[in-house]
Amino acid sequence: MDQGLESRKIVLLYFLPGTAATEDRALHRIAISKQDQLTDQDHKSLSDLRRSCAGDIARMVNLAGCGHPGGSLSTLDFLLIVYSSANVDAKNPRNETRDRVIVSHGHISPGVYSVLGHYQFFDRKEALMQFRLAGSAYSGHVETGVKGVEWNTGNLGQGLSAGCASAYASKLSGGSFKSIVLMGDGEQQKGQISEARRFGTKFNLSNLIAYIDLNGLQIGGDTNKIMPQAISEEYRTAGWNVLEVDGHDLGALYSAFRKAYVNETEQPDKPTVIVAKTIMGKGISFMEGDAHFHGVAPNDEQVATALKELGQENDLAALKAERKTLGHLLKRDFDEFEARMLPVDTGTPRTYEVDGGNVDCRTGYGNALADLGEANNKKGRDGARVVGISCDLEGSVKMQGFHKNSPDYYIETGIQEHHAATLAGRLSWEGYVTFLSTFGVFAVAEGYNQQRLNDINHTNIKLVATHCGMDVGEDGPTHQSIDWIALMSSPFGFKVFSPADANQCDRMTRATAALHGNVFMAMGRSKVPVVTTEDGKPFFGGDYVFEPGKADWIREGTDAVLACFGPTVVPALEAQKQLTAAGKSVAVVNFGSLKPIDRDAIRKAAGIGAIVSVEDHAVHCGLGSLIAQVLGEEGLACKTTRLGVSRYGASGKVPALFEEQGMSPEAIAKAVSDLLA
Amino acid sequence: MDQGLESRKIVLLYFLPGTAATEDRALHRIAISKQDQLTDQDHKSLSDLRRSCAGDIARMVNLAGCGHPGGSLSTLDFLLIVYSSANVDAKNPRNETRDRVIVSHGHISPGVYSVLGHYQFFDRKEALMQFRLAGSAYSGHVETGVKGVEWNTGNLGQGLSAGCASAYASKLSGGSFKSIVLMGDGEQQKGQISEARRFGTKFNLSNLIAYIDLNGLQIGGDTNKIMPQAISEEYRTAGWNVLEVDGHDLGALYSAFRKAYVNETEQPDKPTVIVAKTIMGKGISFMEGDAHFHGVAPNDEQVATALKELGQENDLAALKAERKTLGHLLKRDFDEFEARMLPVDTGTPRTYEVDGGNVDCRTGYGNALADLGEANNKKGRDGARVVGISCDLEGSVKMQGFHKNSPDYYIETGIQEHHAATLAGRLSWEGYVTFLSTFGVFAVAEGYNQQRLNDINHTNIKLVATHCGMDVGEDGPTHQSIDWIALMSSPFGFKVFSPADANQCDRMTRATAALHGNVFMAMGRSKVPVVTTEDGKPFFGGDYVFEPGKADWIREGTDAVLACFGPTVVPALEAQKQLTAAGKSVAVVNFGSLKPIDRDAIRKAAGIGAIVSVEDHAVHCGLGSLIAQVLGEEGLACKTTRLGVSRYGASGKVPALFEEQGMSPEAIAKAVSDLLA
Repeated sequence: MDQGLESRKIVLLYFLPGTAATEDRALHRIAISKQDQLTDQDHKSLSDLRRSCAGDIARMVNLAGCGHPGGSLSTLDFLLIVYSSANVDAKNPRNETRDRVIVSHGHISPGVYSVLGHYQFFDRKEALMQFRLAGSAYSGHVETGVKGVEWNTGNLGQGLSAGCASAYASKLSGGSFKSIVLMGDGEQQKGQISEARRFGTKFNLSNLIAYIDLNGLQIGGDTNKIMPQAISEEYRTAGWNVLEVDGHDLGALYSAFRKAYVNETEQPDKPTVIVAKTIMGKGISFMEGDAHFHGVAPNDEQVATALKELGQENDLAALKAERKTLGHLLKRDFDEFEARMLPVDTGTPRTYEVDGGNVDCRTGYGNALADLGEANNKKGRDGARVVGISCDLEGSVKMQGFHKNSPDYYIETGIQEHHAATLAGRLSWEGYVTFLSTFGVFAVAEGYNQQRLNDINHTNIKLVATHCGMDVGEDGPTHQSIDWIALMSSPFGFKVFSPADANQCDRMTRATAALHGNVFMAMGRSKVPVVTTEDGKPFFGGDYVFEPGKADWIREGTDAVLACFGPTVVPALEAQKQLTAAGKSVAVVNFGSLKPIDRDAIRKAAGIGAIVSVEDHAVHCGLGSLIAQVLGEEGLACKTTRLGVSRYGASGKVPALFEEQGMSPEAIAKAVSDLLA
Repeated sequence: MDQGLESRKIVLLYFLPGTAATEDRALHRIAISKQDQLTDQDHKSLSDLRRSCAGDIARMVNLAGCGHPGGSLSTLDFLLIVYSSANVDAKNPRNETRDRVIVSHGHISPGVYSVLGHYQFFDRKEALMQFRLAGSAYSGHVETGVKGVEWNTGNLGQGLSAGCASAYASKLSGGSFKSIVLMGDGEQQKGQISEARRFGTKFNLSNLIAYIDLNGLQIGGDTNKIMPQAISEEYRTAGWNVLEVDGHDLGALYSAFRKAYVNETEQPDKPTVIVAKTIMGKGISFMEGDAHFHGVAPNDEQVATALKELGQENDLAALKAERKTLGHLLKRDFDEFEARMLPVDTGTPRTYEVDGGNVDCRTGYGNALADLGEANNKKGRDGARVVGISCDLEGSVKMQGFHKNSPDYYIETGIQEHHAATLAGRLSWEGYVTFLSTFGVFAVAEGYNQQRLNDINHTNIKLVATHCGMDVGEDGPTHQSIDWIALMSSPFGFKVFSPADANQCDRMTRATAALHGNVFMAMGRSKVPVVTTEDGKPFFGGDYVFEPGKADWIREGTDAVLACFGPTVVPALEAQKQLTAAGKSVAVVNFGSLKPIDRDAIRKAAGIGAIVSVEDHAVHCGLGSLIAQVLGEEGLACKTTRLGVSRYGASGKVPALFEEQGMSPEAIAKAVSDLLA
């Protein structure tokens, strides 16, 4: 790291705040509300700016030795129109009412950085020096460490969903800002975009403006050969306003953008897409229309030619020399743009009493969510608003109560889980405590990549999955989510919880709402008895507080430990009863928090010397694995047996499915006896 | 299980083969090639059959106490048209030239089972008795354990992609069969369908016939309220033939189906969709148009009413009594319909010599794949054909060589990873050894759920991901696949491999082609030195054979063990050199097979007493975790240190990214020294 540290010092010395001023210029702004077309002066200034940006793009990519000049240059004109006329402010780049500009084809980072640099969101030269240099903010795909960047992108097809979220957030907050999404044309092949299109129409997101860079080329070549698509027609079919323009005609681009911005469209209440016919590499002769330059850097001679064409001095050698001084690794010292956090009122916990009969965790969740809506979504209240999102499963995930008391904050996305996942992430980022609920397989297996991207974006999503595990019942293996510990533990920022009964679910849900950062909660479908203390009181009732990383010793014991969570707590307690009758002293510990895991509880269990884990999850990648890992890391010798799902499940009643997987109370008791034998 | 076993005996006794005959009837068949419309006799027979099937649907769902009658009844007419006129044979339900009938909205299993039962693919009564009974083949969502079912579905939006694969497979084999896909209307909201539509048009899948059950209701109610969509227009825009019909007019349905079947459409070279306006619950008065019956069973009184309407005797009480005798769990004893396996010629391994300079694993893969194409795709050769699929990354994943020598077997899907994943799975199932290659994040994080469904379908896919880990380089965190061990180890059927250099990649690729079942291979992007033996020969050259579950001791040692794989093998060997110079004897073991993992190697390493794992993967869910698990399970006390990716990576050159994550040779050597100190 030393080298990195030193080189960083050099950078800091080199780029004194003042130096930016030395290359300052009159930044060209256009009053979009007043001006319906560009003046000659606008044309001249923007054209000058374009040439200067094109030069930076060529330099930047050459200096890094890699990057994407082609799309940067084809999108450049629209970037200039947006940053000259939209409500963005380099002096205060993160103010709440700014227009959100989301660049979904994040690989055009050189284009974005060149424009932001010229508009002094940061020192132009810093981007030239640090583009794609490890440790810097100027990544290969746009990242929010760079002032002016709204969303980390790079995986194509997600930006429009994020833009829908910002547009929706703006409407919730009184329509104070616009949401502008830039996309590539190859990107339009991604299915998630068809989901986002429908969403934009259903919710009349008239403040959503999409731009498509129709340069006709993707990595493999001609877009029409790789995968033919009728882009404009697809948006028209979905009910959008479609404006087709020459993407290199600044006047036409501005008029189209303005029409959309001030809603002078055929359907003023609908979103608008600007489909811009462009030329890849536009503005640098040898790059124009050459797919090769989608993702390849020009060499020194080519940059010389480019700068000559653009009427710029060739300072490449000097820049190279400077960049060499930075070494190959910088120390990260930029601040990322993270989810907005506002205070949450968690309301008053409910307690489900023993004599109330069996209750499903879903009901505990639904009631707690309704309470959160009640407490936080009152008109005029300061603090966070709570949002609930369902994917055509409102009743199954028990969101009816929340829907009823928070109609403005309930969102039905239809069967569009990919879109819903990104939508929820960006909405949480905009400051809404966002609960997204669907079945486990759709929340986790289907939406995983969208959650991974949310996590990289430092969101604050609360992903709550119902119908997890064998506990989905008769729907069968395609609906059995048995991999969620493995998957949702993987993204660095996610915490992973699972409630044992409605009482723990109530407290867990409220704690989750108040936690900063991403949380995944998994629960089954069935009604389960209230878990009680030895003397029959609700174990998770009264003043029980859920704490991440803390397991619950529901029963103490000296011979062996039953480790469980969620739907296996009740069978574990039944097994414990049978074992007690057989004269064995067995503890039952509930791991309601899977990540972080309670290492102290595992140490204590290891001290007892025999651990049987039982879980409604694939047995090779769940709680049993986590326990074995801790034992292995700490060199704790302890006899263990793992019970869990060892093959794809059947379709039937839950007790039968548990029995088939060797997880019935009798099987659990037998496993303990065998381990102790 | 005893209860299950006994009950199964009862079943077997009850359903003697003969008994089916007792309720035999003249099965109604229509010669679609000759007959352009239904006769009065066809109408009468199919209408009788419809009433009988409707009765079975009501019975089946009531007996199980759950299920989906609504959509079963709205799709019923088309199911009857298909099974009466398509090329399907109850006596030989799995013959190679049969038409493939894929039911994507798998929850209409009662409808499917009722029709298949009447057409004697199995004993009608068995489905009534065993529907949604744990251990039986008659799952809540259609499964291939049931004769006549082509594909396990239930997660909506994937069936059309599977149907595209069968249609493509038919064209590859001379166009011997049709591919028919039934879908729901709510399902049309899924983005993957837009990807499959484009694919069907690009490849002129004129033998693909889709049916959409437009009953206007989804779980949440009116489809137009939940998420408005212009279904017919979306297919027209994509270039399909669209036939709109009354889905309960048998004559109109037949004519539409025939038009599509014999290609008497406006665009005979394009796929056709039949959009059928239907009524949920059609044929049972109180269910008609009631969303409640999407997924709720009628009670006894309602079944009585239904059977009366349908002119059938009410035998519900007797059936219930019989079903009770089965207990709640059957012993699985049905055979599933699995991927077709044909012999593969793995060709002659290539060896990359030390003096040939650094080579990337991608090149090793690309050359081996080209060899496999050369060896297996010759005209007239018996045995398997090898297929290669790319998602607009042909050059990056090095498929050019294969594309060149196997043009008919190379498929470019565009940037449509969800579709590509299902397409590849079903193509492999049709008997093609299918290699799907893209970057790690798209192969794993984006396509995970499709691979999970492939695995449940017993496919034979070879998913080969390039650009994994920090080794993706400057593309940054959104492109860094650091979770693939956690994700791809989760599905029960997948094996997980990662090559250390081009030589191991060559042998691994050939072994993967010949292995039966699903395989995931992960590799980085960079060129790496050839891994050598102590005396400088290629370690993985010559007669080295890759074996799943076998680790490679590249260096032996007595003080400590460096555990690594893929891109960390070279830095580990460099560290080992430094440590040797410092007088320490350190072994280097390469885990090219992550699943299955080599437990003997871990035991041996534990015997040495100190293990430092280093991996280009999230450190909390990769090789280090797998090793700790084995240690924990076996109670082996051993000092361990884990090195790996501990936070989202930066965007820069690979050595810098490794350094930033503490995985440089120096950092590795220091970790070993510290552990031994």
